[in-house]
Amino acid sequence: MKYLFKDVTVLSMNEGMEIKLSCDVLVEDDIIKAIDNISHGVAEGATVIDGKGKLLMPGLINGHCHVPMTLLRNYADDLDLQTWLFEHIFPVEARLVDDDVYWGSLLGIMEMLKTGTTCFIDMYDHIDAIAKAVDASGIRAHLSRGMTNSNEGSDFSEDKGLLENIEFIKRWNGAANGRITGAFAPHAIYTCSADFIKAILNEAQKLGAPIHVHLDETRVEHEDCLKNHGKTPTKYLYDLGLFGQKTIAAHCVWITDEDIEILQENNVTMVHNPTSNLKLASGIAPVPKAIEKGVNVILGTDGASSNNNLNMFEEIHLASLIHKGVNQNPLLVSAEDSLKMATINGARALGCSNLGIIKEGAKADLILIDPDKSHILPMHNIMSALAYSVQGSDVCLTMVDGKILYENGEFKTIDMERVKYHIDKSFKRLF
Amino acid sequence: MKYLFKDVTVLSMNEGMEIKLSCDVLVEDDIIKAIDNISHGVAEGATVIDGKGKLLMPGLINGHCHVPMTLLRNYADDLDLQTWLFEHIFPVEARLVDDDVYWGSLLGIMEMLKTGTTCFIDMYDHIDAIAKAVDASGIRAHLSRGMTNSNEGSDFSEDKGLLENIEFIKRWNGAANGRITGAFAPHAIYTCSADFIKAILNEAQKLGAPIHVHLDETRVEHEDCLKNHGKTPTKYLYDLGLFGQKTIAAHCVWITDEDIEILQENNVTMVHNPTSNLKLASGIAPVPKAIEKGVNVILGTDGASSNNNLNMFEEIHLASLIHKGVNQNPLLVSAEDSLKMATINGARALGCSNLGIIKEGAKADLILIDPDKSHILPMHNIMSALAYSVQGSDVCLTMVDGKILYENGEFKTIDMERVKYHIDKSFKRLF
Repeated sequence: MKYLFKDVTVLSMNEGMEIKLSCDVLVEDDIIKAIDNISHGVAEGATVIDGKGKLLMPGLINGHCHVPMTLLRNYADDLDLQTWLFEHIFPVEARLVDDDVYWGSLLGIMEMLKTGTTCFIDMYDHIDAIAKAVDASGIRAHLSRGMTNSNEGSDFSEDKGLLENIEFIKRWNGAANGRITGAFAPHAIYTCSADFIKAILNEAQKLGAPIHVHLDETRVEHEDCLKNHGKTPTKYLYDLGLFGQKTIAAHCVWITDEDIEILQENNVTMVHNPTSNLKLASGIAPVPKAIEKGVNVILGTDGASSNNNLNMFEEIHLASLIHKGVNQNPLLVSAEDSLKMATINGARALGCSNLGIIKEGAKADLILIDPDKSHILPMHNIMSALAYSVQGSDVCLTMVDGKILYENGEFKTIDMERVKYHIDKSFKRLF
Repeated sequence: MKYLFKDVTVLSMNEGMEIKLSCDVLVEDDIIKAIDNISHGVAEGATVIDGKGKLLMPGLINGHCHVPMTLLRNYADDLDLQTWLFEHIFPVEARLVDDDVYWGSLLGIMEMLKTGTTCFIDMYDHIDAIAKAVDASGIRAHLSRGMTNSNEGSDFSEDKGLLENIEFIKRWNGAANGRITGAFAPHAIYTCSADFIKAILNEAQKLGAPIHVHLDETRVEHEDCLKNHGKTPTKYLYDLGLFGQKTIAAHCVWITDEDIEILQENNVTMVHNPTSNLKLASGIAPVPKAIEKGVNVILGTDGASSNNNLNMFEEIHLASLIHKGVNQNPLLVSAEDSLKMATINGARALGCSNLGIIKEGAKADLILIDPDKSHILPMHNIMSALAYSVQGSDVCLTMVDGKILYENGEFKTIDMERVKYHIDKSFKRLF
């Protein structure tokens, strides 16, 4: 299949943050085949998409999510963490079955696709059901099975979560034309023993798979670690050797200057989840310092129960606002910084040089934005507009792996009515 | 004209935060005539609006805006305050003429209407042009002429700004079926001398008009006031007698506990502008404390050049997020608190018991929201959904003073193409 975006403004997200006006972009199969000066022969047979007055940019990469939790959206808000988790979230999660997870994931994927996310990095249970939803929807995802200790001791050969994560990597890594990739996910230092983390690391090494972990999200996690281990959570995981595998660490709210150096030196990606960290009252991650020190910082929504959207434009917006206010410095986390965190840095976290960028040979994960709206005009500055004014609802087309999955309110691979029917069914059973 | 909203879920915003399901609401002329159990005779001749599956709530009240600055949207971001103001904003503002202000205001009003704002509280120059835009668009507004000292000394009888503000109150207050009301606006303590503030107060007293002022927005304003006057900006204005008039004070980022008591005791309304305070790096206003002490706190967008949207759902969202994160307390500023700040508290600031609420006899300033979307479902909790998930783009109908001004992407009183033509003209002349 070929598509030709005609006469569009292209935000390439390359090193120079190049913006090309009145540009043509040819997509063939899953690849950006050519940009500008495209001869008629090469574009022959392509479906033409009128890009006049519109912006084309790389699809957004949601750096940290628990997509099935979309089922729990707007449930149990404005509560303290203990009440929220132990009285509301955990009891419902314990009742989830594969079917809930499949349809809950599709609901979350719908929101992501229509708000411009083309790839998400996830951690949850029932991972097979999530992979099936990813496969069916056409979105790109990096999945892992969130694991917590199921037993004491050091023998985890029968651990259900670990076996599922191993099985998942073997079955799904690289599936769906490479749209699905996998990682191992020790949930966090406070839910996994050192022995369990080592056992997970061992399996990750054997399969050459990366790591996705929650790191230093709350003050309690940080202080307990200092008390119990005499070191920060980052140093603790470093000493366990976890960062020897390529690691994506979510939250990093309480990391110290020394921790930032450890992350940088070990190429650990830090996921900033501004909405979730605010809503759950975790605090404000030291993002400006991490960026300054060269850490690869990316952006995530976290799950819908702590956000309550999976809308990356909200995270871009918030990331460019909050650090200015909290640090009383308007020069921190520019529009450009936030846009990088949501695109090219996400690709770097996944080790993919052909994602998060518009260039010849890159994957055709693209979004088209219509800025001809009263809430965006006048268009003084494209980068500012994208970070501060554009809404998720301004995305008019989302393409993943060269296929149009969403266009002008319509989902090409997902039947909204069917999703609603099943969500309603799950809802009635669960609550 | 009569409208009958049929079978709609009503969020009344009354004292008990009552939510009525499957409700009918009859609007006659500018008033909510009847709610539920409406006899056929009473509703006869009404245009029926199908409310099934939708939410009806009072229109949002934007507590602090500079609507003509919509022209400067996405212009000069990520800069320090001095560079932003003196090198970019002030030079452009000096070149503005009435025509720019009229069309810039209409552009801002379009954004507000389509994102659910039915009334805004504004401060700017060229106030006649703003009033004309308000009049033409059908929105409700509380306008004032932002004044700064034009001369030293104590004789302000020839002050251009003051004369214009007086003239405005006389000509426009109560105009357009009461949709337009006026206030006097000493810009701030650092741009107005004590004598000038007293002269303004004197005129406000003579005309029985309220006050709109910027208060304690930045650390510099706060510290300079302590240095120059030995007291906080709030105490300074209190001692000048300003709060003897009904006052709306924007920002209040640096107010102390004593200041909060002064505001509460003098029924001064505090406007929280979370996006603007973050973007301009002013800081975080002590909103939880002010709410706890009984201050009437409302929400505002500020101008589009420090936001860059005039979308009250973004402010509701942010107000319910940021104080939790900064204070590490997830119980602060609940969804309900933010929704009150954006509706009923705004009405209280204006001294209007018939705005910001759905009850018989109240003004028909209403918005209809369609929550049947993948980013809002499942609808566990209406209040949570409104504060955390709903986007401005989910507003499908906006009614002001009993007239539908916006419906499903269409503006009834504003010609978008004409606005764009004039914005483009202004843009080319100004930049």
